[in-house]
Amino acid sequence: MRDRAERILEDVRRIATMSEETGRTTRRYLSAPVHDVHAYLGARMDTLGMTVHVDSVGNLRGVWQPKMAGERRLLLGSHIDTVPDAGAFDGVLGVVLALEWVVLAQESNVPVSIEVIAFSEEEGVRFGVPFLGSRAVAGTFDPALLTLRNADGVSVEDAIRTFGLNPALIPDAATGDDAIGFVEVHIEQGPVLDTEGIPLAAVTAIVGQTRGTMEFVGHANHAGTTPMPLRRDALAAAAEWITAVESLAQSTADLVATVGRISVKPNAGNVVPGEVHVSLDLRHPLDDGRHAAVDSLVQKAREIADRRGLVNAWQVQIDQSAVPMDARLTEALTDAIGAVGLPTKKMVSGAGHDAMVMASRVPTAMLFLRSPGGISHHPDETVLLDDVECALRVGREFLQELGRRQDVQSRDGIQ
Amino acid sequence: MRDRAERILEDVRRIATMSEETGRTTRRYLSAPVHDVHAYLGARMDTLGMTVHVDSVGNLRGVWQPKMAGERRLLLGSHIDTVPDAGAFDGVLGVVLALEWVVLAQESNVPVSIEVIAFSEEEGVRFGVPFLGSRAVAGTFDPALLTLRNADGVSVEDAIRTFGLNPALIPDAATGDDAIGFVEVHIEQGPVLDTEGIPLAAVTAIVGQTRGTMEFVGHANHAGTTPMPLRRDALAAAAEWITAVESLAQSTADLVATVGRISVKPNAGNVVPGEVHVSLDLRHPLDDGRHAAVDSLVQKAREIADRRGLVNAWQVQIDQSAVPMDARLTEALTDAIGAVGLPTKKMVSGAGHDAMVMASRVPTAMLFLRSPGGISHHPDETVLLDDVECALRVGREFLQELGRRQDVQSRDGIQ
Repeated sequence: MRDRAERILEDVRRIATMSEETGRTTRRYLSAPVHDVHAYLGARMDTLGMTVHVDSVGNLRGVWQPKMAGERRLLLGSHIDTVPDAGAFDGVLGVVLALEWVVLAQESNVPVSIEVIAFSEEEGVRFGVPFLGSRAVAGTFDPALLTLRNADGVSVEDAIRTFGLNPALIPDAATGDDAIGFVEVHIEQGPVLDTEGIPLAAVTAIVGQTRGTMEFVGHANHAGTTPMPLRRDALAAAAEWITAVESLAQSTADLVATVGRISVKPNAGNVVPGEVHVSLDLRHPLDDGRHAAVDSLVQKAREIADRRGLVNAWQVQIDQSAVPMDARLTEALTDAIGAVGLPTKKMVSGAGHDAMVMASRVPTAMLFLRSPGGISHHPDETVLLDDVECALRVGREFLQELGRRQDVQSRDGIQ
Repeated sequence: MRDRAERILEDVRRIATMSEETGRTTRRYLSAPVHDVHAYLGARMDTLGMTVHVDSVGNLRGVWQPKMAGERRLLLGSHIDTVPDAGAFDGVLGVVLALEWVVLAQESNVPVSIEVIAFSEEEGVRFGVPFLGSRAVAGTFDPALLTLRNADGVSVEDAIRTFGLNPALIPDAATGDDAIGFVEVHIEQGPVLDTEGIPLAAVTAIVGQTRGTMEFVGHANHAGTTPMPLRRDALAAAAEWITAVESLAQSTADLVATVGRISVKPNAGNVVPGEVHVSLDLRHPLDDGRHAAVDSLVQKAREIADRRGLVNAWQVQIDQSAVPMDARLTEALTDAIGAVGLPTKKMVSGAGHDAMVMASRVPTAMLFLRSPGGISHHPDETVLLDDVECALRVGREFLQELGRRQDVQSRDGIQ
């Protein structure tokens, strides 16, 4: 398995050079270097005997159809677009590794058809909306998305046509809902596995997320001539609330909450701040838990504002439900992890993934690989060779078990 | 006195129309409308029988020399430059009111020479450095100031020459140190007198001031994938410190402390902040009290940073000593306030004034007029007609008492 793991890392690093910018990895949705990625991965799929095509939203799709597979089919994959100045592994690793899982399935004569999908868009960089690729496969691509335009005046439809595809055929990209499931392998993009010294984890859910803005309005005053009791300092109020946000998240299991952005008026050293806006990003694997936390923090802000004689307001920008992964498919993945002698770690994903979108269509599971240093969306992002090898061994176990369960009705997932 | 108070308000409002901008009062150091102010006030001085000249830093100076005044002389005045989009009363009121005090001195045959100075620069707007006018009179004008340039590339020297003055003669603007004293009447620019319902106060000291920047450096992380215990959130640390700053100031007499400016990197809603800079503006009438407060807050920041695994640094930009007003001159002013039946309120000034600079040369006192709503540096800035009348009555008492104390050695101030 060592050679195969090394080959995967080589492939991933080669794909990282297919970029819009020399010396940095930047590959937005349907940008020119995506043609190179399609050619490179398409040739590899071809070598594996897979049937290859690019669907109308730009996903590269290769199907391995073994003899005696019958109706049973499995979807694997991740995305090939990147953030600007990205690392090499976010997304691409899951695609290259999926192709190696096909090799393992072939070697073990697993009687299941496997489709590997390299999703064209997940990061939301080019048009500000993520998951364009997986929405099309899940059958949830809203045609209104085609009219989205970026700062250059280019629409999604323009981008698709320029790439040589026909946006009118996007509905044909939808997969049937009869697959055994979809499995995405992805780097964790966080520090949990690295901190615990564990190579892999099965994902139980993708957290729900609330994003919004909390506003405090007091009164701007001269910092020298206004005694403390006569102030209505909007930043002092915001600071008290930021401390409360952190404190609630620290004392609530599975909750993360972040104030990442702040704007202060007039933002001058010698003026008591009159108006402050702060962002809140709050995530929890259960929607009830998330809503309770938001309610508690909105109430806390009101108390702070009332006590200080300030006005405050809360505006929600995003209220996105948690997405649980398929319990049986996740259990099969965990069993495979245990079968190769690794700790059967389960965790939630704090970030969104194509798996979140695919879960609306087919049973879905995710496998996380440890991110050394928790680093992601940065050129220093990496994975350990040992961990890639572990992911191959887990894949072989998982696929072989799938093969043994031939009698299972695919629509019901694994039983 | 009512008519005189009304005339003062009319004069102040007329001078407010002498502006660099139509419809707003903006009159920076030696800008074109300063010629108009000089002409207007100079004519008034002339009418009062005063000897008028403009010194080489642009201060308008009028001297009233009564018969039998001997060597005894008093300085009065304030500044005529403004912040952009200013109110009418900041500075100008003190000059116009000083001229009315000259009338009162003339009517009472006060045997003291009086020089009224309209300082050319106090706000520090045009060249970023305040008190250019009073520095010259106090004899503390550093010639290096002449080379200061603003964003337009104009130097202080250029501005003086363009106005028609000779910067080489600035040393001649210095006053002798033999005056009885300097008295500045100024609006409070804060809410204290308005809140207490008191028209006037004698100023006992101008507070000392520390300004600096506190830096917290943690680590930027993904807001979704980084569990709370693994974060090093620079904004959460800064928020804790901002709360400590406010808390210390609230619990320490005569201390005001303000965090007015904040900058956060990367300042994105979905990223745990990695680096935060916050300003500190801390003022106290005693330098020991101020330094103790700063030390305590620097220590607190270190504790917060250490506990959270962050790095922190403190950089001082300004460390300006408190300036006590002359005790005897202030006592004379307070006696005059009491003599007209007003509460003898004493207070510290939280803002800097020309009086702070003049105090290095001659015994100095300040009289504050209530600022309705505490509003200053804003077009809504105003004063009450009644309060101006009070300031005239106090002035008459003060000057008459000065006249009665003819035997006093001027160098020692009032005894």
